[in-house]
Amino acid sequence: MKYIFPFSEGSKDMKELLGGKGANLAEMTKLGLPVPPGFTITTETCNYFLINKGYPSGFQEELKENLAELELNMSKNLGDGQNPLLVSVRSGAKISMPGMMDTVLNLGLNDTTVLGLISNTQNERFCYDAYRRFVQMFGNVVLGVDHDHFEEAICELKEKKGIKLDTELTAENLKSLVQIYKEIIQKHTNSPFPEQPSEQLRLSIEAVFNSWNNKRACTYRNLHGIPHNIGTAVNIQAMVFGNKGEDSGTGVAFTRNPSTGEKIFYGEYLINAQGEDVVAGIRTPVPLDKLKIQMPTVYEELVSIKDRLENHYHDMQDIEFTVEQGRLFILQTRNGKRTAHAAVRIATEMVKEGLIDKHTALLRVEPNQLKQLLHPSIDPKAKITVIAKGLPASPGAATGKVIFTADEAYEKAQTGDQVILVRKETSPEDIHGMHAAQGILTSTGGNTSHAAVVCRGMGKCCVAGCGDIIVNGKERKFTAGEIVVYEGDIITLNGTTGEVILGEAPMCEPELDGAFRELMQWTDDVRTLKVRANADTPEDAKVALEFGAEGIGLCRTEHMFFAEERIPLMREMILSKDNPEARKKALDKLLPIQKQDFAQIFEVMKGLPVTIRLFDPPLHEFLPDIDQHKRIQNLATELNLTIEHLKDIITNLHEVNPMLGHRGCRLGITYPELYAMQVRAILTAAIECHDRGLAVHPEIEVPLIGNVSELKAVKKIIQGVIEELKEGIKFEYKIGTMIELPRACLTADEIAPEADFFSFGTNDLTQMTYGFSRDDVGTFLPYYLEKGILVEDPTSSIDQSGVGFLMKTCVKLGRQTKENLEIGICGEHGGDPKSIEFCHEIGLNYVSCSPYRVPIARLAAAQATLKH
Amino acid sequence: MKYIFPFSEGSKDMKELLGGKGANLAEMTKLGLPVPPGFTITTETCNYFLINKGYPSGFQEELKENLAELELNMSKNLGDGQNPLLVSVRSGAKISMPGMMDTVLNLGLNDTTVLGLISNTQNERFCYDAYRRFVQMFGNVVLGVDHDHFEEAICELKEKKGIKLDTELTAENLKSLVQIYKEIIQKHTNSPFPEQPSEQLRLSIEAVFNSWNNKRACTYRNLHGIPHNIGTAVNIQAMVFGNKGEDSGTGVAFTRNPSTGEKIFYGEYLINAQGEDVVAGIRTPVPLDKLKIQMPTVYEELVSIKDRLENHYHDMQDIEFTVEQGRLFILQTRNGKRTAHAAVRIATEMVKEGLIDKHTALLRVEPNQLKQLLHPSIDPKAKITVIAKGLPASPGAATGKVIFTADEAYEKAQTGDQVILVRKETSPEDIHGMHAAQGILTSTGGNTSHAAVVCRGMGKCCVAGCGDIIVNGKERKFTAGEIVVYEGDIITLNGTTGEVILGEAPMCEPELDGAFRELMQWTDDVRTLKVRANADTPEDAKVALEFGAEGIGLCRTEHMFFAEERIPLMREMILSKDNPEARKKALDKLLPIQKQDFAQIFEVMKGLPVTIRLFDPPLHEFLPDIDQHKRIQNLATELNLTIEHLKDIITNLHEVNPMLGHRGCRLGITYPELYAMQVRAILTAAIECHDRGLAVHPEIEVPLIGNVSELKAVKKIIQGVIEELKEGIKFEYKIGTMIELPRACLTADEIAPEADFFSFGTNDLTQMTYGFSRDDVGTFLPYYLEKGILVEDPTSSIDQSGVGFLMKTCVKLGRQTKENLEIGICGEHGGDPKSIEFCHEIGLNYVSCSPYRVPIARLAAAQATLKH
Repeated sequence: MKYIFPFSEGSKDMKELLGGKGANLAEMTKLGLPVPPGFTITTETCNYFLINKGYPSGFQEELKENLAELELNMSKNLGDGQNPLLVSVRSGAKISMPGMMDTVLNLGLNDTTVLGLISNTQNERFCYDAYRRFVQMFGNVVLGVDHDHFEEAICELKEKKGIKLDTELTAENLKSLVQIYKEIIQKHTNSPFPEQPSEQLRLSIEAVFNSWNNKRACTYRNLHGIPHNIGTAVNIQAMVFGNKGEDSGTGVAFTRNPSTGEKIFYGEYLINAQGEDVVAGIRTPVPLDKLKIQMPTVYEELVSIKDRLENHYHDMQDIEFTVEQGRLFILQTRNGKRTAHAAVRIATEMVKEGLIDKHTALLRVEPNQLKQLLHPSIDPKAKITVIAKGLPASPGAATGKVIFTADEAYEKAQTGDQVILVRKETSPEDIHGMHAAQGILTSTGGNTSHAAVVCRGMGKCCVAGCGDIIVNGKERKFTAGEIVVYEGDIITLNGTTGEVILGEAPMCEPELDGAFRELMQWTDDVRTLKVRANADTPEDAKVALEFGAEGIGLCRTEHMFFAEERIPLMREMILSKDNPEARKKALDKLLPIQKQDFAQIFEVMKGLPVTIRLFDPPLHEFLPDIDQHKRIQNLATELNLTIEHLKDIITNLHEVNPMLGHRGCRLGITYPELYAMQVRAILTAAIECHDRGLAVHPEIEVPLIGNVSELKAVKKIIQGVIEELKEGIKFEYKIGTMIELPRACLTADEIAPEADFFSFGTNDLTQMTYGFSRDDVGTFLPYYLEKGILVEDPTSSIDQSGVGFLMKTCVKLGRQTKENLEIGICGEHGGDPKSIEFCHEIGLNYVSCSPYRVPIARLAAAQATLKH
Repeated sequence: MKYIFPFSEGSKDMKELLGGKGANLAEMTKLGLPVPPGFTITTETCNYFLINKGYPSGFQEELKENLAELELNMSKNLGDGQNPLLVSVRSGAKISMPGMMDTVLNLGLNDTTVLGLISNTQNERFCYDAYRRFVQMFGNVVLGVDHDHFEEAICELKEKKGIKLDTELTAENLKSLVQIYKEIIQKHTNSPFPEQPSEQLRLSIEAVFNSWNNKRACTYRNLHGIPHNIGTAVNIQAMVFGNKGEDSGTGVAFTRNPSTGEKIFYGEYLINAQGEDVVAGIRTPVPLDKLKIQMPTVYEELVSIKDRLENHYHDMQDIEFTVEQGRLFILQTRNGKRTAHAAVRIATEMVKEGLIDKHTALLRVEPNQLKQLLHPSIDPKAKITVIAKGLPASPGAATGKVIFTADEAYEKAQTGDQVILVRKETSPEDIHGMHAAQGILTSTGGNTSHAAVVCRGMGKCCVAGCGDIIVNGKERKFTAGEIVVYEGDIITLNGTTGEVILGEAPMCEPELDGAFRELMQWTDDVRTLKVRANADTPEDAKVALEFGAEGIGLCRTEHMFFAEERIPLMREMILSKDNPEARKKALDKLLPIQKQDFAQIFEVMKGLPVTIRLFDPPLHEFLPDIDQHKRIQNLATELNLTIEHLKDIITNLHEVNPMLGHRGCRLGITYPELYAMQVRAILTAAIECHDRGLAVHPEIEVPLIGNVSELKAVKKIIQGVIEELKEGIKFEYKIGTMIELPRACLTADEIAPEADFFSFGTNDLTQMTYGFSRDDVGTFLPYYLEKGILVEDPTSSIDQSGVGFLMKTCVKLGRQTKENLEIGICGEHGGDPKSIEFCHEIGLNYVSCSPYRVPIARLAAAQATLKH
């Protein structure tokens, strides 16, 4: 077993063992690029360490050998008073988890080696600066001393010295700071700072290993579905310094623009700085163009390297580089994170450039990221009050209440509020709040700052580095010039322009560009799963069709009854519930209205299938609550009833558990007139359209079937209407059922012979399978997710072991008795990429989702086909 | 294919084809008993007829041949003016459905044949009586004319003639009645009465076939779980007459007493009557002893036949006989229905007599029937007001509100009322009301009347033929001498003595006799399924143990909290729900009380396993409803809170679907102090008992697990307490889980490694699988059952295709990862014999049911072992 690989021995295919960073450092070394030498401790070593709380035997020898090799290579020795070797210690998992785990730079410094470094560099200030940075970083990252203690100390010193910027600190100041930092460490850890470099190295390696299980890394893995048992590699690399003066610097470069996808060399850097200064967003870097002027040779070399890397990796690269006294070093390359817009453009352009094929292109775009493109943007014609402008860090637009801490953003969002998280800068600790917020605004940091990178990954709108504003988290306000915005005030962010707008700005629909349409076209060539939309109105249907829906998978008829002019008729029907005649009279008045609804939808859908679900909710939803006295009074007057009588009716309709009550087909069976009216409306609408020469394809869907007898009973009602209208029915139609009760899945073999199609209602199915209602989970589900009792909210993504088991059983049993049974899904999961992949795997015919999710579903379906 | 079998060709093993009655008639014919000759049309013919609305080809020829054979045999011809053959046409399914289907007697009479009959019998009155009975029966049964029309006509005639009894009608009166009846038929059917005997026969056969699907037959089959597709046979038999004078008669005899099981010849008969007079309960018959005096030879012959029959069938026989002018005919034999008491006595005594073996004996007692023995009887020391006395038709005791129609009895019972159905007599149309009532009281009819037979079958208390009372259904009252009892008044019936008691009489526990204990002992030798009881208190536990429970399968701890002195503590806990410290304080006060509960139960159970379920219900159950203003006010004062604050808390606890809300382990996980307190109470109680030298075996059960992580989380709480108390724990204990969510079944392989046992909570599991709550099914479930959409209420007997599928999956998956996993059931289904058989089949280790059901479960478990 080999625990350590020098960069010269690995390759990009060894990500599993060396992590992404290590594999790419090795690959670049192999390509002959100027990578500072070093070696990688494998992920397997990490896993061994975490399980056994110690190293595998033989590891220490390998570490010694590799360190010796590195020392030889660099002609420097760790801990050498004359010529000390300094190294960085960085984590690097197989799957990138930016900023989630620990990094230590400048390792190897102590009171002795710093003198050697001074004599070598002849730059005392740089050396003490490096030393104090190392002590601070080591203290924080490895020894767990709060960052703020060090910040306070430096501020105090600056105040005492009457200076404002860190760069104004002298070598002497920095030297004293090192001692102050060491005292802070002594105080908070009850141990002295470890002077011995080998001890520093050991502790740092272990800190990186242990950081695999820190809370923010676990949260990140949960959010991104990364397994918890793959561990991280540790990269130990000779230090190079971007902070050795004006001929040094450090930066980040992208081979294409990660926001727009445009094929230009894009990036930013800071002169005389270490890499963490760029990433942390403490100073705002300058664009790469300036480097071309400041260091033309370095710039040319960088351009040639980036071309090589993109051609080598066949993907847009995110490259970290450092210039040490005019010499270029490449510290990292990886596939660059990008906006949805950029992802689509890069994928389609790379196909045209011959760099990748269409299938690869399809796999390059994360379906969920498309939300960015599909969500509304700010109406350009709207009159808005721009109060500040920052960097357009992640496109899109978002409106919400201003909140200043991640915790509060998370809590507010739990209660249904839309929030904008406003911070000076963000850090990995803020991840849960960022996830919960609609958008992020930061006052410092660039396009590659933590906030920007994370938001692009999440497909969330972000305005970063907005120096126009001053954030005062303590007083819960920020100022933009004269304007003061308090916690709870509403602002709108435009992540595409960087504008910060006061109040709620009007939004408009996204314009989808050619690259997007092209990619969508490719998905259709690949995928086997059809994509329909859930649409209740002709307007929804139009949007769905525009986004490429191949039919309507769920048209909920009851929403139609809530309209103001209809609800009185609905109430009339309910109030005459014990009198079938009167009930029928009220329903007869609803009939032409429903018919009109359906005719319009059929017209829009041009002969594509339209699945119409018969009435589903409990009747009491249409009446006011018993304790809404005012409403009861009004309604009683309106309906010419006594208040007592109306209250009696409402009380009678009250259910203990309405979700498990008199609804769905149970209503249709006990009040057959209701379903008869709806079926009549559907079919007469279809007949009218057909007679007008339009193609129609209605599919009648019966909700909440638990027993085939129920379906038979409802079909009898439907067949009665069909019998009456049969002369006019010259088109195809189907009669099928929702599958939303566990029992329906378990007896699918009995139900299938009676159904032309099945459609999984996974919302209800999930609730029944788990035995919880979405209305009531607020008391424990957040706690469950927080404690990891549930890794994922099963209402967002299909719970494959429980609900999925039922679905698989249903598909198997259903097709056992009806081989070619058409099966779809119309729960909210129909728009979730992971669930779509599952639906593809278990052999469904289509998914149906909200209109705006149709493109996401098309892409996810194509990816599912390509993966399986 | 043979459609008809003469009695001489069949046998008792041909029940499937010939029905029970036909097979037994054939068997008796084979035995040489005096059975009037005849033939049986097969059940297959019936099924063919019902499906194809017509006869199979060849049937008519067979019918002709058999009829000719019968005519030859009897030397009489159907429709012969000189010597007419009269026949009966009777239904007879494989499984006895007494009174459910149609019968026609005296078929063959018309204005011509009646004259032939008169000249043969020289008894004009008898002949016209037979004729008018035939026209009435045919009109009612075959032609569907309401019974009341004929009754009115006869009453009118009697009034006109100034007579009271039917027997006072002269031949002339009866002759005119025939014409009146025919006019009634003409009026109500718009057709003349069919004079042609072959037409009469055809119509009667078809009427019997069609009666298979009449409503009361369908209801009966639904109630008794008889398949709907097995059809009925039709028996056509030469008539013999018990109403030819004082040397004729008809009766019913049992080879042993069907009420007590005593081995005595038991029965009753009516002189000069047809069989229907006995069954319908219109006249009250006399005991068989009288026959011994009146017709000693006939009696002797009957005794010898009954001995032969019982020895032949190895079971107690119910024999119908007719004496025609001194000659004995046997019309039917079948296994006699009997009370539970009789069933147990007969079964055990027959073993001793060597007639059957123990296994057969065990299969002879219907487990559900044991309820009769196990239900309380009237306390003999109680002061009661007996207002009347009738026949002790079905033992036991019952109290309820007096109701006079079956429909109202059914409706009242639906609302939870306990009712006593009081009728002059009952008929098969009343079956739903009888089922719903606690007991039945009739003013006419004997021990073999419809009411008596049906009640014994149902195990329901019945006082029949209570001539002391006059029932006035119209005015909704009955009188017993001076006393008037109105609808809604409460009476008590003693079915064991025949007493009718005013008001509610005190009941006491049943005394179980030696035969019962012996039979129960035999069940224990046979069965593999263990039987435990659901018991929440030491008192319940005592009863359970007495009935032979082998442990407690479900001890619900929350019921303990509802006691008056505890609920304030519970409320204190709830009201401090956001403050773990205060919560713990309130719980600390509950701890000693809970400990005491458990200690007492452990003591009673003497080391048998006691499964204690941790707290399950939602917290708001312990607080008043928000609109109970008075209670809110009191509670606020009591707790020193403002009304608003209390209302806020209650509103916060309100759930839309409490069944799917914050309850079970979800509460335990979010409020860990609660479960910790309970576990501490259980274990300290056990430690104390153990220290006192008592054997204890606690099993801690976690409710509402849907995910193994939940169980792990709760186990962590439990383990924490165990860790604290481990020094004292020197006994075995288990930690397991309820299985009551579909997801728990589907992921049983994941849950099993964490659980020492599973226990199916089939109440909740059924509700989740069907997606309905027991509190809300009232709006549609009765309708479903009535329309046959559901054949059986799945909350009474396990729905094997849905819920059972999940249970089977759970057992399979659970034992896949834990081979010897102990699995039980503690839902209400645990006391249902059919469900118990299912539990045996899928390999459960035990069932747990209410204490009073333990003997039923023991017997059902033994039968399951014997059947499989």
